[in-house]
Amino acid sequence: MRTRPLKVALLGCGNVGSEVARIMTTQADDLTARIGAPVELAGVAVRRPALVREGIDPALITTDATALVKRGDIDVVIEVIGGIEPARSLITAALEHGASVVSANKALIAQDGAALHAAAEQQGRDLYYEAAVAGAIPLIRPLRESMAGDVVNRVLGIVNGTTNFILDKMDTTGAGYQEALDEATALGYAEADPTADIEGFDAAAKAAILAGIAFHTRVRLDDVYREGMTEVTAADFASAREMGCTIKLLAICERAADGESVTARVHPAMIPRSHPLASVREAYNAVFVESEAAGQLMFYGRGAGGSPTASAVLGDLVAVCRNRLGEATGPGESAYSRLPVSPMGDVVTRYHISLDVADKPGVLAQVATVFAEHDVSIDTVRQQSRPDGAAGADGASDASLVVVTHRASDAALTGTVAALRDLDTVRGVASMMRVEGE
Amino acid sequence: MRTRPLKVALLGCGNVGSEVARIMTTQADDLTARIGAPVELAGVAVRRPALVREGIDPALITTDATALVKRGDIDVVIEVIGGIEPARSLITAALEHGASVVSANKALIAQDGAALHAAAEQQGRDLYYEAAVAGAIPLIRPLRESMAGDVVNRVLGIVNGTTNFILDKMDTTGAGYQEALDEATALGYAEADPTADIEGFDAAAKAAILAGIAFHTRVRLDDVYREGMTEVTAADFASAREMGCTIKLLAICERAADGESVTARVHPAMIPRSHPLASVREAYNAVFVESEAAGQLMFYGRGAGGSPTASAVLGDLVAVCRNRLGEATGPGESAYSRLPVSPMGDVVTRYHISLDVADKPGVLAQVATVFAEHDVSIDTVRQQSRPDGAAGADGASDASLVVVTHRASDAALTGTVAALRDLDTVRGVASMMRVEGE
Repeated sequence: MRTRPLKVALLGCGNVGSEVARIMTTQADDLTARIGAPVELAGVAVRRPALVREGIDPALITTDATALVKRGDIDVVIEVIGGIEPARSLITAALEHGASVVSANKALIAQDGAALHAAAEQQGRDLYYEAAVAGAIPLIRPLRESMAGDVVNRVLGIVNGTTNFILDKMDTTGAGYQEALDEATALGYAEADPTADIEGFDAAAKAAILAGIAFHTRVRLDDVYREGMTEVTAADFASAREMGCTIKLLAICERAADGESVTARVHPAMIPRSHPLASVREAYNAVFVESEAAGQLMFYGRGAGGSPTASAVLGDLVAVCRNRLGEATGPGESAYSRLPVSPMGDVVTRYHISLDVADKPGVLAQVATVFAEHDVSIDTVRQQSRPDGAAGADGASDASLVVVTHRASDAALTGTVAALRDLDTVRGVASMMRVEGE
Repeated sequence: MRTRPLKVALLGCGNVGSEVARIMTTQADDLTARIGAPVELAGVAVRRPALVREGIDPALITTDATALVKRGDIDVVIEVIGGIEPARSLITAALEHGASVVSANKALIAQDGAALHAAAEQQGRDLYYEAAVAGAIPLIRPLRESMAGDVVNRVLGIVNGTTNFILDKMDTTGAGYQEALDEATALGYAEADPTADIEGFDAAAKAAILAGIAFHTRVRLDDVYREGMTEVTAADFASAREMGCTIKLLAICERAADGESVTARVHPAMIPRSHPLASVREAYNAVFVESEAAGQLMFYGRGAGGSPTASAVLGDLVAVCRNRLGEATGPGESAYSRLPVSPMGDVVTRYHISLDVADKPGVLAQVATVFAEHDVSIDTVRQQSRPDGAAGADGASDASLVVVTHRASDAALTGTVAALRDLDTVRGVASMMRVEGE
């Protein structure tokens, strides 16, 4: 066994970074045995050097991350600072100076993965980022390696713990959106500014990464259709319950039936309670993968948090260090299939639409005609007089009409909803949600 | 890109082998792109050469597997014949003649994995076997690589589809064991001789492999405690239901609390219906992994069948071919921790015990005293007079006493059950089953 240690630079020492440093120290013997050489923490770049960091030699702390990655003697750089800059420049400089890189940065990989992979390949170094998607859950490696001999057709998952916590609370306690968000914030599951989570930006970055790997093509963040979950109401959950469904914020990556294009999207959707994703509780993540030979697979675990993310980072660290010792590199970007990413309108899905209509004869016929004109076939329809319904301007009282469609293109479905809004007898579209997972 | 193809020899062309050959042909372009060079089927060793094998050039078929693996120009040998011999000799010869090996052979790896890994390492070749455990589910690679920076404490899984199908039928339809087995046989889920499945041999081999990888130590097949599921009755399911549990045949690998030893075992057990493994239906497999940093992870999918197993084999093929091109090897055996495997008596678990007792005063006190004498603490006890109970020799009618214990060593628990059998007032131990997953 080699005795000269591999030198590791750590960029960022927050929740994840401090846990990485702690495990590198406490599990040093195990890491040495598994890698085949010792690993040594050679420097830790932070923003606030005065902070006491238990277990880390203060002499290793620096605020000059750029100088650290350019030292020339660093074998592996671990980037856990997040965001686009300075992470991008630091990773690029690290690769140029001969280091392999382990990152947990979903936003950066989703935006600039292609360029960073190219830089890594040019230098003969590794760029690994298991921790960027679904935290502790092994997902990148299984998709990239275990399924390398299979054809993946669909990836469907809960990849954001914050929103799953909120939706789970709304489902199980009947809480409204704001109440559930407040609880998530109080428990530390939601950040002070939860925008990236609740608006689906975080999940969209992960969807872009997963789609690219699953379909061996490039999917940019901008290619991902995105709807947040701030407009999901307690009434939506009641509707979902009547259908035997619950509501989840899903990331869905699909290969078209003809295999010639792909789609990637993030939005709230109703899924049947019998679907394994329906029982994913609290802040857990889970990802369903459907492929031609393997069939359905599911991966489940903690999608965030210091320790789970550190577990994924350290798994990558061991792999990258082993590659350094063997003068090899792991699989890089695989984007040979060059499939176009289709817009949301081309996605085939089902809608659950809840309409407020005038309670008078002929309304259902009018509504059904609009669906037919858009080539959208209706699965079920349920009409209910509102006991509390005040009379509208036309003298008729209110009724509620709930329509669930068969599968149709999203363009046809949104066209249908737009046309329904124009009907005199339709007083409003109370809610509209896609139905998935069947 | 290299244009000289990598040469692959296929040993066995049954369910799995024919599917491997088919995908190698139909997905040839994808495999070439993902590997970085074409792969070519250079020979297929079979027992019955006269059988027509669609899509395979008859000129490739041979009955001389030994000559095939010794040809000297073979880069990768895929072994899907199963069993110990001739598979062991063929794999050894293949490695000695410079080929890397992909195998789906759980029995052989569980029995001789150490020797085969040593042969592979000596030759600088790979030995991969993702397909040997849980079919299509990526499990070996995540445990060996993704979790290489973490400390795994427990692996708990359903790793045999046949027995899960039978137990699921018993649970959902109330069928008895024989009836459920007959249905499994009719549907092709059970073999004509189902011994390896129902007696737990198949699951024990997988448990040995999983424990070895998870704990970085050697666990031989003989180290695995094994109980089959042929004695599970409809009455056991009724008891389980009363506790909010179901019954699964589980493979359980654990690190002792002090970290200084491990255990591996296969037996039927009650698990709470709220546990994710409880909802694994039909012939699906699922494995729970608990580690220090990642927490709880679950992997779910098809554990057997031609296509799912072929998916795992081909994933390994791509990895092994990439390693050949890069003149590298993947991670081999990691057994540095050399932890002793403790006997079943040391395992800490809980028992559900159902006793037939005489329905007279003092019986519960007697029974409780036996538990206390063995240092086994009782969680719940339920006594029920049998409405149909005939009087025993002592003139007292029958009652049923159901005891669920707290956690104790298996030795203390079996000692307790033996002592209970000796009590005059205990007419029989109707059933005894471990309770897991809490």
